[in-house]
Amino acid sequence: MVMKIKAGIVGATGYAGAELVRILSAHPDVELTALASRNYAGRPFSEVYPHLYKYVIQHCRELDVPALAGECDVVFTALPHGHAVPVALQVLAAGKKFIDLGADFRFRQPGVYEQWYKVQHEAPDLLKKTVYGLPEIHREKIKTASLVGNPGCYPTSVILALAPLLKGGLADTGTVVADSKSGVSGAGRGLALGTHFSEVNENFRAYNVGVHRHTPEIEQELSGLAGEDMIISFTPHLTPMNRGILSTVYARLNRPMSLEEVRSVYEDFYRGEFFVRLLPPGMLPQTKAVTGSNHCDVAPVVDPRTGRVVVVSAIDNLVKGAAGQAVQNMNLMFGLPETAGLDRPGLYP
Amino acid sequence: MVMKIKAGIVGATGYAGAELVRILSAHPDVELTALASRNYAGRPFSEVYPHLYKYVIQHCRELDVPALAGECDVVFTALPHGHAVPVALQVLAAGKKFIDLGADFRFRQPGVYEQWYKVQHEAPDLLKKTVYGLPEIHREKIKTASLVGNPGCYPTSVILALAPLLKGGLADTGTVVADSKSGVSGAGRGLALGTHFSEVNENFRAYNVGVHRHTPEIEQELSGLAGEDMIISFTPHLTPMNRGILSTVYARLNRPMSLEEVRSVYEDFYRGEFFVRLLPPGMLPQTKAVTGSNHCDVAPVVDPRTGRVVVVSAIDNLVKGAAGQAVQNMNLMFGLPETAGLDRPGLYP
Amino acid sequence: MVMKIKAGIVGATGYAGAELVRILSAHPDVELTALASRNYAGRPFSEVYPHLYKYVIQHCRELDVPALAGECDVVFTALPHGHAVPVALQVLAAGKKFIDLGADFRFRQPGVYEQWYKVQHEAPDLLKKTVYGLPEIHREKIKTASLVGNPGCYPTSVILALAPLLKGGLADTGTVVADSKSGVSGAGRGLALGTHFSEVNENFRAYNVGVHRHTPEIEQELSGLAGEDMIISFTPHLTPMNRGILSTVYARLNRPMSLEEVRSVYEDFYRGEFFVRLLPPGMLPQTKAVTGSNHCDVAPVVDPRTGRVVVVSAIDNLVKGAAGQAVQNMNLMFGLPETAGLDRPGLYP
Amino acid sequence: MVMKIKAGIVGATGYAGAELVRILSAHPDVELTALASRNYAGRPFSEVYPHLYKYVIQHCRELDVPALAGECDVVFTALPHGHAVPVALQVLAAGKKFIDLGADFRFRQPGVYEQWYKVQHEAPDLLKKTVYGLPEIHREKIKTASLVGNPGCYPTSVILALAPLLKGGLADTGTVVADSKSGVSGAGRGLALGTHFSEVNENFRAYNVGVHRHTPEIEQELSGLAGEDMIISFTPHLTPMNRGILSTVYARLNRPMSLEEVRSVYEDFYRGEFFVRLLPPGMLPQTKAVTGSNHCDVAPVVDPRTGRVVVVSAIDNLVKGAAGQAVQNMNLMFGLPETAGLDRPGLYP
Repeated sequence: MVMKIKAGIVGATGYAGAELVRILSAHPDVELTALASRNYAGRPFSEVYPHLYKYVIQHCRELDVPALAGECDVVFTALPHGHAVPVALQVLAAGKKFIDLGADFRFRQPGVYEQWYKVQHEAPDLLKKTVYGLPEIHREKIKTASLVGNPGCYPTSVILALAPLLKGGLADTGTVVADSKSGVSGAGRGLALGTHFSEVNENFRAYNVGVHRHTPEIEQELSGLAGEDMIISFTPHLTPMNRGILSTVYARLNRPMSLEEVRSVYEDFYRGEFFVRLLPPGMLPQTKAVTGSNHCDVAPVVDPRTGRVVVVSAIDNLVKGAAGQAVQNMNLMFGLPETAGLDRPGLYP
Repeated sequence: MVMKIKAGIVGATGYAGAELVRILSAHPDVELTALASRNYAGRPFSEVYPHLYKYVIQHCRELDVPALAGECDVVFTALPHGHAVPVALQVLAAGKKFIDLGADFRFRQPGVYEQWYKVQHEAPDLLKKTVYGLPEIHREKIKTASLVGNPGCYPTSVILALAPLLKGGLADTGTVVADSKSGVSGAGRGLALGTHFSEVNENFRAYNVGVHRHTPEIEQELSGLAGEDMIISFTPHLTPMNRGILSTVYARLNRPMSLEEVRSVYEDFYRGEFFVRLLPPGMLPQTKAVTGSNHCDVAPVVDPRTGRVVVVSAIDNLVKGAAGQAVQNMNLMFGLPETAGLDRPGLYP
Repeated sequence: MVMKIKAGIVGATGYAGAELVRILSAHPDVELTALASRNYAGRPFSEVYPHLYKYVIQHCRELDVPALAGECDVVFTALPHGHAVPVALQVLAAGKKFIDLGADFRFRQPGVYEQWYKVQHEAPDLLKKTVYGLPEIHREKIKTASLVGNPGCYPTSVILALAPLLKGGLADTGTVVADSKSGVSGAGRGLALGTHFSEVNENFRAYNVGVHRHTPEIEQELSGLAGEDMIISFTPHLTPMNRGILSTVYARLNRPMSLEEVRSVYEDFYRGEFFVRLLPPGMLPQTKAVTGSNHCDVAPVVDPRTGRVVVVSAIDNLVKGAAGQAVQNMNLMFGLPETAGLDRPGLYP
Repeated sequence: MVMKIKAGIVGATGYAGAELVRILSAHPDVELTALASRNYAGRPFSEVYPHLYKYVIQHCRELDVPALAGECDVVFTALPHGHAVPVALQVLAAGKKFIDLGADFRFRQPGVYEQWYKVQHEAPDLLKKTVYGLPEIHREKIKTASLVGNPGCYPTSVILALAPLLKGGLADTGTVVADSKSGVSGAGRGLALGTHFSEVNENFRAYNVGVHRHTPEIEQELSGLAGEDMIISFTPHLTPMNRGILSTVYARLNRPMSLEEVRSVYEDFYRGEFFVRLLPPGMLPQTKAVTGSNHCDVAPVVDPRTGRVVVVSAIDNLVKGAAGQAVQNMNLMFGLPETAGLDRPGLYP
């Protein structure tokens, strides 16, 4: 029998961390080696997340990076920005692989990170060997990477919606509007009035209009696909549900195209991709169809009246938008089948 | 004591009709004279809507238009499109006032109605004396109207979001994208898989992308405000909540403007309007803040990076988006204070 | 014109306090004089609760009890237990009326309070002149009271469900089981993992089984009605909704009774009560029918197989379960019509 | 390689049927051979349930029982009561195994079925060889059964909550009250006002008080455990969530017992059971902890004040309350590991 990959998770008791625990606990090639949590150190993980009772017997522990780097083959961090860098440095120094679910390793330009996140990047040189972990765009680089910056949830949904169009040079890059709607788990398990049940339930609101930190991340990747610098309008919204992001992305077509033409561009681009599902004509993505799975459902609609294409995409923000994508990256980095541990459908209804 | 206005409601047991009943049952100048309902004729209204037990003692009755036209000073219809025209003809012939909450009297051009609703308009001449019942735009005409087409819910939210900008000639009319999110009551009380609890709850989806029937209604009014024909992108979405529409509307500014400049345009436009609340700087509309009230909360955001303005607006789709606005129109048509029966704040949380 | 009653609210920015503000802002005989809030002192109230923008112009202020006692005719406290006593002492000393929405003045026996709340009562003598503010049970005493302890939300729903049966000596007092389900606003606006949206949404759970602090309050009042000491089983549950409590209360009948007999006991008991609605045969209470109103809907069901009666009751926990009942008490204490400010139906759906 | 079990599902497009499809599509030993659906015959299953797109390639087909009996090793029916009997007769005659998720094969006495379901049982003799498919109670009989009546969702939660107590003779059998709360998917995918989103959301209600058809099913099994005829009070409630049942079950203890004593009875009874999780002291079941999994979480609480035990249990009504339990039964009937296809944890949050 092959040795299992030893995985450590730092920030294991946040929602993204716990979703990693859920997925990795059922991954055939992984052994959960260390679950670090500042708030719950010493307590059984399954007391913090009772759905995993009888599945995860580990206790949470304090973060001890050298120990972690010694024990694990791969370390995942699910931490607020700025906190992953010191962990990454030690893990990489120990020759182990590193996947950050936060924002610290998503930007090629440290200046962009520093401008939007208002902190200095403490290891800007690392960014040169970092790969942006969106496998459908950067698969080959991920396979050989030691350090992956796992994409944000909104960016995953927006980039996958537009990639075929931009790569094909079919959209007017100055006309992109991305209007995204997220469930509440994307805001994490921390306490804030904005995630209090009674404030969110029966409510719908926009937030951070024009200034959300995922904007430059989206622009970086769209620019790479388009081959030119892009600036977009991006508006996030909070929806009264737990999981899911739906993005509605608008762009003017450079020339009139039929739906069939546009669809064939998407078919070509996503041929062979298991996790991106181009829906059949007549079906539109909905978040419920991807709840609990690593899929991104996509459908373009052509509006001949306005000359715009409207692309709708849906993901589970905790899976393809966080933990599932991180495991997809891990699979690539370790030469495993890309779908290992991610091959089950989601829940409906 | 002044005589009360005798009001009849046709389609009283749909959600918009029942909301009319709720509001009018507490209106100081109105007597609920007739509640017509095909499905529940003969049954006490409060059995169909138990929140009104002890408030509404009337029974539902079959629709008898001549009787209705005889008894009532004003008749409201809350019916599927195509069904209000014959009622209107008789009510108007009897010299009474008529307010339709459906689509039959929203369009100045019968051809537009026929193109989008796929039926012939049976009284196109009536459209000439019809007023589009958005008081903040057409108040003076409403005051003298006998026949008002009450706006759709989405159009109310989008038009009020953009009116100041377009009236002022400040936005590039070819760049408007309106992305709207609605609660489920907007789809009515009829049974359909798309409003089954388990299908909607924990789900978010777009529908009728590029082809929703509210599109030409929005375009008609925006065109009137802008003084030129406009074509926009409009996408409706279904949100897992009962009440509320939030619209996020994007347009490129014709020239760089500061937030202060844009806000002062809105302040001027909406000065003296009780029902449109331009929120203070730093606050953004949310549907919960208008639940149960006739307000439309509005806030523009200027994004200097993209040169776009993003205007967010929120309404309760059953109040300002339907029954409340109809009562506001009735108040104007009868010379009552515009806020009569509509002067209570909503519920939070 | 009659002078308005000057009302002050301490703890105005919690959910119960804000609901008081909403109701009193539309009360014809009340002037909102002071809104005290520790967390938001100095800020406009309508920034904290945006539904009241344009309705409430007051700013929150620090608590200054002597000033409050001087300015106001009545002071409401919506505070954690233990905090109302010192306010009450000063307000009463100034000859003003006092209504506490917390637990400090609900118990006739200080020892019971101290046993369940684990603190000493700082003014046990005050309890002698305190009236338990459930008007349907203690109306006459409330009319002449200066100090009212407003009932808890669960107790209101359970006591009103059982009162006719116990007063009539019809139920076996040793067999009462009260199983109650509450919306989340009952837990207040404070931050806790237990009210985080993602933890509550799509979840249902029991809590404080057998040890909830509302138990002795229920028992005190049921014992008073029955004329003997009663001990009951009470279990609260958290339901993924904002407002509403539904209680399902079980008791064995002392003798076989028909539904008609039991209903006639309820009809007699609640005859003339506006806020308690005994539903017609065939209808059962549901929380949505009372959302936003001060009603308690009640319906008994007789189960001849088991010899038990099952009484279902529903209230809005923030209205009849808190702020609405407090206003009902205020109306009685000041000789106003009992329904003043509380005469509007709720919202549905 | 071992041959896979060929499974057919009749009523595959209801929620219970679709959940069977989801579970069996990932079951290592099963091949989905036939998906019969009256409403969607001819259509790809994944158009009806888009979460299974790329997982289930089968089309729905018309029901053809002889073909089904020929092709399949086991047939599941998820149909309204009365419809499973004719299918069962043919499938059994063909020597295949049969599991009914409906009510047709849950009762040992045809008279009880006929009294509560108001129809005559068309194959009462079959009931003699039917096994009630609750593995934790009837495992050995299930292993050799050809015909299993899969338990109802409410009964599963109530029976597992009480079984250890009754088997041990510890509870007063005349004092049992079962108060159950269910998510909406339990009502199926059919259209009804009672499952319309806007009616259910922000609402909580009881229904069928004292007369729900699961009552005699619960009583049959509890009586078997207790060794005497039992009559209980059972009240179902509808909760605004998709999945989950929480039951709160009350019974008077025959003698004073400590929590430790009671817990040790439960530990003994459920030792070795993977799917029943007796939670550690201090934890209470919640529906979210079992969403998507086949677990029943259980915790007893002793209330010394009342002499009652309150047992709380939670299941996912579509998994342990329907499809998951059916697969557990299938595993037993075919000699597979009991957890095959059911070994993944659920989703949280």
